[in-house]
Amino acid sequence: MESIIYIIPLFGVIALIYTFWKASWVSKQEVGTEKMHKISEHIAEGAMSFLKAEYKVLSIFVVCVAILLAVSANPVESSPIIGVSFLVGALCSALAGFIGMKAATKANVRTTNKARTSLGKALEIAFAGGSVMGMGVVGLGVLGLGALFLIYSNVFGVNSLSDLNRVITIITGFSFGASSIALFARVGGGIYTKAADVGADLVGKVEAGIPEDHPLNPATIADNVGDNVGDVAGMGADLFESYVGSIIGTMVLGAAFFGYPEFANKFNGLSAVLLPLVIAGVGIILSIVGTFFVRVKEGGDPQRALNMGEFGSSGIMIIALYFIIKWMMPETWTHEDPLYGITYTITSTGIFLATVIGLVAGVLIGILTEYYTGQGKKPVNDIVRQSLTGSATNIIAGLGNGLSSTAMPLIILAISIIGAFHFGGLYGIAIAAVGMLSNTGIQLAVDAYGPISDNAGGIAEMSELPKEVRQRTDKLDAVGNTTAAIGKGFAIGSAALTALALFGAFMTAANISTIDISKAVVMAGLFLGGMLPFLFSSMAMKAVGKAAMAMIEEVRRQFKDIPELTNALKVMKKNDGKEQKTWSDEDKKIFEDADGKAEYGKCVEISTKAAIRQMLIPGLLAVVAPVIIGFFGGPEMLGGLLAGVTVTGVLMAIFQSNAGGAWDNAKKTIEEGVEINGVKYGKGSEPHKAAVVGDTVGDPFKDTSGPSLNILIKLMAVVSLVIAPLIK
Amino acid sequence: MESIIYIIPLFGVIALIYTFWKASWVSKQEVGTEKMHKISEHIAEGAMSFLKAEYKVLSIFVVCVAILLAVSANPVESSPIIGVSFLVGALCSALAGFIGMKAATKANVRTTNKARTSLGKALEIAFAGGSVMGMGVVGLGVLGLGALFLIYSNVFGVNSLSDLNRVITIITGFSFGASSIALFARVGGGIYTKAADVGADLVGKVEAGIPEDHPLNPATIADNVGDNVGDVAGMGADLFESYVGSIIGTMVLGAAFFGYPEFANKFNGLSAVLLPLVIAGVGIILSIVGTFFVRVKEGGDPQRALNMGEFGSSGIMIIALYFIIKWMMPETWTHEDPLYGITYTITSTGIFLATVIGLVAGVLIGILTEYYTGQGKKPVNDIVRQSLTGSATNIIAGLGNGLSSTAMPLIILAISIIGAFHFGGLYGIAIAAVGMLSNTGIQLAVDAYGPISDNAGGIAEMSELPKEVRQRTDKLDAVGNTTAAIGKGFAIGSAALTALALFGAFMTAANISTIDISKAVVMAGLFLGGMLPFLFSSMAMKAVGKAAMAMIEEVRRQFKDIPELTNALKVMKKNDGKEQKTWSDEDKKIFEDADGKAEYGKCVEISTKAAIRQMLIPGLLAVVAPVIIGFFGGPEMLGGLLAGVTVTGVLMAIFQSNAGGAWDNAKKTIEEGVEINGVKYGKGSEPHKAAVVGDTVGDPFKDTSGPSLNILIKLMAVVSLVIAPLIK
Repeated sequence: MESIIYIIPLFGVIALIYTFWKASWVSKQEVGTEKMHKISEHIAEGAMSFLKAEYKVLSIFVVCVAILLAVSANPVESSPIIGVSFLVGALCSALAGFIGMKAATKANVRTTNKARTSLGKALEIAFAGGSVMGMGVVGLGVLGLGALFLIYSNVFGVNSLSDLNRVITIITGFSFGASSIALFARVGGGIYTKAADVGADLVGKVEAGIPEDHPLNPATIADNVGDNVGDVAGMGADLFESYVGSIIGTMVLGAAFFGYPEFANKFNGLSAVLLPLVIAGVGIILSIVGTFFVRVKEGGDPQRALNMGEFGSSGIMIIALYFIIKWMMPETWTHEDPLYGITYTITSTGIFLATVIGLVAGVLIGILTEYYTGQGKKPVNDIVRQSLTGSATNIIAGLGNGLSSTAMPLIILAISIIGAFHFGGLYGIAIAAVGMLSNTGIQLAVDAYGPISDNAGGIAEMSELPKEVRQRTDKLDAVGNTTAAIGKGFAIGSAALTALALFGAFMTAANISTIDISKAVVMAGLFLGGMLPFLFSSMAMKAVGKAAMAMIEEVRRQFKDIPELTNALKVMKKNDGKEQKTWSDEDKKIFEDADGKAEYGKCVEISTKAAIRQMLIPGLLAVVAPVIIGFFGGPEMLGGLLAGVTVTGVLMAIFQSNAGGAWDNAKKTIEEGVEINGVKYGKGSEPHKAAVVGDTVGDPFKDTSGPSLNILIKLMAVVSLVIAPLIK
Repeated sequence: MESIIYIIPLFGVIALIYTFWKASWVSKQEVGTEKMHKISEHIAEGAMSFLKAEYKVLSIFVVCVAILLAVSANPVESSPIIGVSFLVGALCSALAGFIGMKAATKANVRTTNKARTSLGKALEIAFAGGSVMGMGVVGLGVLGLGALFLIYSNVFGVNSLSDLNRVITIITGFSFGASSIALFARVGGGIYTKAADVGADLVGKVEAGIPEDHPLNPATIADNVGDNVGDVAGMGADLFESYVGSIIGTMVLGAAFFGYPEFANKFNGLSAVLLPLVIAGVGIILSIVGTFFVRVKEGGDPQRALNMGEFGSSGIMIIALYFIIKWMMPETWTHEDPLYGITYTITSTGIFLATVIGLVAGVLIGILTEYYTGQGKKPVNDIVRQSLTGSATNIIAGLGNGLSSTAMPLIILAISIIGAFHFGGLYGIAIAAVGMLSNTGIQLAVDAYGPISDNAGGIAEMSELPKEVRQRTDKLDAVGNTTAAIGKGFAIGSAALTALALFGAFMTAANISTIDISKAVVMAGLFLGGMLPFLFSSMAMKAVGKAAMAMIEEVRRQFKDIPELTNALKVMKKNDGKEQKTWSDEDKKIFEDADGKAEYGKCVEISTKAAIRQMLIPGLLAVVAPVIIGFFGGPEMLGGLLAGVTVTGVLMAIFQSNAGGAWDNAKKTIEEGVEINGVKYGKGSEPHKAAVVGDTVGDPFKDTSGPSLNILIKLMAVVSLVIAPLIK
């Protein structure tokens, strides 16, 4: 046994120690006023009650699947223990979401509190909250995978290729567990957050005329809870499964080199299997180092701080990759490809270049995401201009923009696939995904920082703090946008590459040498697979529609049935536009009496129930479809299905995320005030109303359906990989 | 030489004789009042001027490509004459569009005139106009293909497999010519009609408050011209290329059986090559017979008449198919598949069943289209209900509906592919497409009947005829909807199967045995191909947006600069809602003075110019992309590209057509008046405004981008087929 196998889990432990250290530091910060405290408690409770309800339902699913996996496992090539791997994977994924959300719901109010005095201090807390999530995700991933590999290789041995394959097959259950929880979390969280958002907006803002985040709006707490369960916990589970999936895919493909003479002196022939784990482990250390770069002095530029952390650690990562790969892999080796029956030479330099291709592709797709969705760029400005002629032209422009935004990323992906394959075959594609995700720790910290800042702003508003507090949190939020766009690029790019790596792993496991599109079953699989992201998106969008309707009805009911709210709304309308201090004393009293009378809990409950009920069918679709096609259509048809779902899944994910992002920023641009053809437009103008329609359409696109598709394609690939030994 | 080769072109001649007979019969009917005559002249002139401008631009493209094809042709496997085939194909396609539009612009006003007295007589004219187009298309297709095959087989001989392959390779140029003109016609016509429609609606209806088709609206003639150039000429070119493509694809694949002992006594071994031509020829005769079923007595049901014609001829077609196939094909034969190196047995019964699968799949997809877009069905009712909460929820519901409507058609396609392949390999898939399109003649007659009735209504409105005339034409138009939905099902289903047939033909021609998705170049091709329909759609939508903006500006200018129009609009606003006879004499005079002052020609010119300018890039994209990928990435990458473009092309076509159709009918449902939760909503209500937004978004979806995608996938396949000998 190589000692390195014992070291790998330690990297995970280090990350978790960092996580707990940061989390307790955040907890120790001051919460602020009594009102802030009360509101943040509401949000934290709502978020927890959603997670509890969600995990309760999912635990039934997880136990059933684990038993099925254990019972159906082929005892020669796998083992019933695969059920345990699945349980551990699901547990780690759930835990990652839990840790991240717990930290986020503590960090949000503390960020608000610091924002009362200092931008730099507020950034520090928001980022610390994000880094708890980031490090928790990578820590659990590396610890889980590393520990399972350590234990299983001791139990089953890794002295022959069949032993090794067996160990890795059993570990794939971990990835399956992680992916299925991730999909449910993303879909459930996405439905929750958008139902609450649309509900709060449509009745609160439009019908009753009260501002977003106003304490009179019964849905406002649910709205803020949504940011946490959707954007934080959902994203954590998402990247956790990407991270784990890319590592597992690479391990499966790396096992092919076991027993090659060139690998004899390289970690007992395991170096290609261990490489992704070591890269992930070193990535953890560098991510931790990166977090220390994120500092901003008073008056300093927070954007610069985030960039320093992210790009600084990426730069060092590239150097580290070079040395790790040169150290672990043979200088050059000849690979007899069992799939194509051809022989070719791979070099360690080639493997390094493949990881660089992955990293560069991720950054490029991120920059394109920023271009297609960022304020001040041509696509968003076009949407702004088209809003002048109403909501129809706004929608057409947004859809057109989203559709065209797929072109360049797909060209980059195509080139990356060819390049990475050229340097290292399918293993090259897999390791490119690992390279792309090597600094997930800090990447995710930056991603989670965004919704924490956003929430901090909401709390500032609800607690009726001075305007400058909200301005500070808005600035923090805006700063995260560019880095978040880059993060989206990584999420999409890595999803595509990981899916391809798992695709290759599936072919190896199913023992099929070609998936020939000109065969009817493969073509039929391709058609069906291509259709699934369309069906899945429609389910997600309809779910948001239904859940939002339930929320709208509840808010309307409260406005009608709770007399204090009814009166307060009347008073607000009467004093429309006037500052509160100019109101009559009687009006002020009525208004104050209404404070806290809204039944936030009811709205939280409705969002929770609707999200959990609606997430089940789309989630099950992803698990069941490959099983049905695999057993009834055979492995080749399943291969076609996977290819189809990957291609349209990536396309629809980019289309929906970018369309939604651009609509959102077009609305923000008008809200900040624009001048077109000499006329000024702002909040409340006709173009603004048109832009609000676009933003509402974009919401389920970018926050529910779009990001879920990334998981869908990987989950289906991993399900196929797990069932491969049964259908070959 | 078999005598049947001489007979095939005669079927085409018969269709053309029928075409001229019907066309002259339509011309002889009475036009009606002076005003009707004038308006119809405007429309006919506008349509002709568009076709002229379009064909002028395209002739440059056609000549260039023809020369390129001739110069680059491989003299052994092909011949420079392929350039001539291309020219003839382009010419036939253009001619088909011209004949159809000429007939439509004559039939529309005559339908209006008959509708003044009788529903049955009006139906007769509208349908006669449509059947001119339908028979023109199939006549030119069979005559063109049949004559070229006759000539080339005499010139080059068909006595060896290589001779036969050469003849068919040269004929593929015909299909290329037809497809490229079709794509430009569809895109150009689609941009034209939607730019005029959106322009007329947004300024005329919304800003100036005058009804659709009102003579004061300068864009109203352009709008009616658009119906002809988009819905009639565009559709004609579209189905012409589907028809030709499916026949050619089957001929290429059928050539593989040449020289088989079982075929020795079957038309000199050519029976599998000639079968699609004979089926098409017999289909012509049955379609002509079908047109005689379309009769309705006064008080009779026009829906029944159309169904009788369409389903009656389909029923007879199935019987005819059985006898044709049993007569022409050997009872059973063994096929050594050069692609897979496997041998399997095909029977004539199997080939017959494959054609039945094609026909049944077409009808089923059509019925689903009707379900997802028809008034009174659940999906449209859902959109109506979601319009209550505004345009955002209307759009979300429409998008969700469109996305989910892809599921069942794709499942049907997948089953059809597997079934047809099971019965006859790739030849089975190809012949299924031929079966589906065998009654294109009558199908297209019914399709073209719709826009003719629609136009007739427009003319009734503009000529200020009594209300019952418009009611009759509306009834005619509504009746066509179900049959038109079935037609769309055939268009989409046949596009998918034809693309697959051409795909198989391409593999044969490029001499590649597998297209293995697990190879990096194929996967990269799949990604790029999948992306193209997204890019293409975005271009089409943006083009409509730009052209509509130009139209809006022109209409606004006329309302400002032409004093008679300005005054008439003021008078209309003053007398808002009052009937015209109650107006003051002075107002009446101002209003009458404005009659005919709108500069319709300017709007026609703007639409024409914009459509032609904007159609070029998306059209060229389709031609250039396979050439680039083929030459730089090789035939396997090109195969991946074709598979990708077929899958997402079919998905996007169904999604966009159905989303657009459902939005349209949701708007119509509200306009006719609906009651939801005890409240009645109608024209001008808030839900109606929301539904208008959805309809406007859906317009470029269903009339520009969606139907163009059907052509895109076939054009790219046919380009690949044509360049296959050069890149293998």
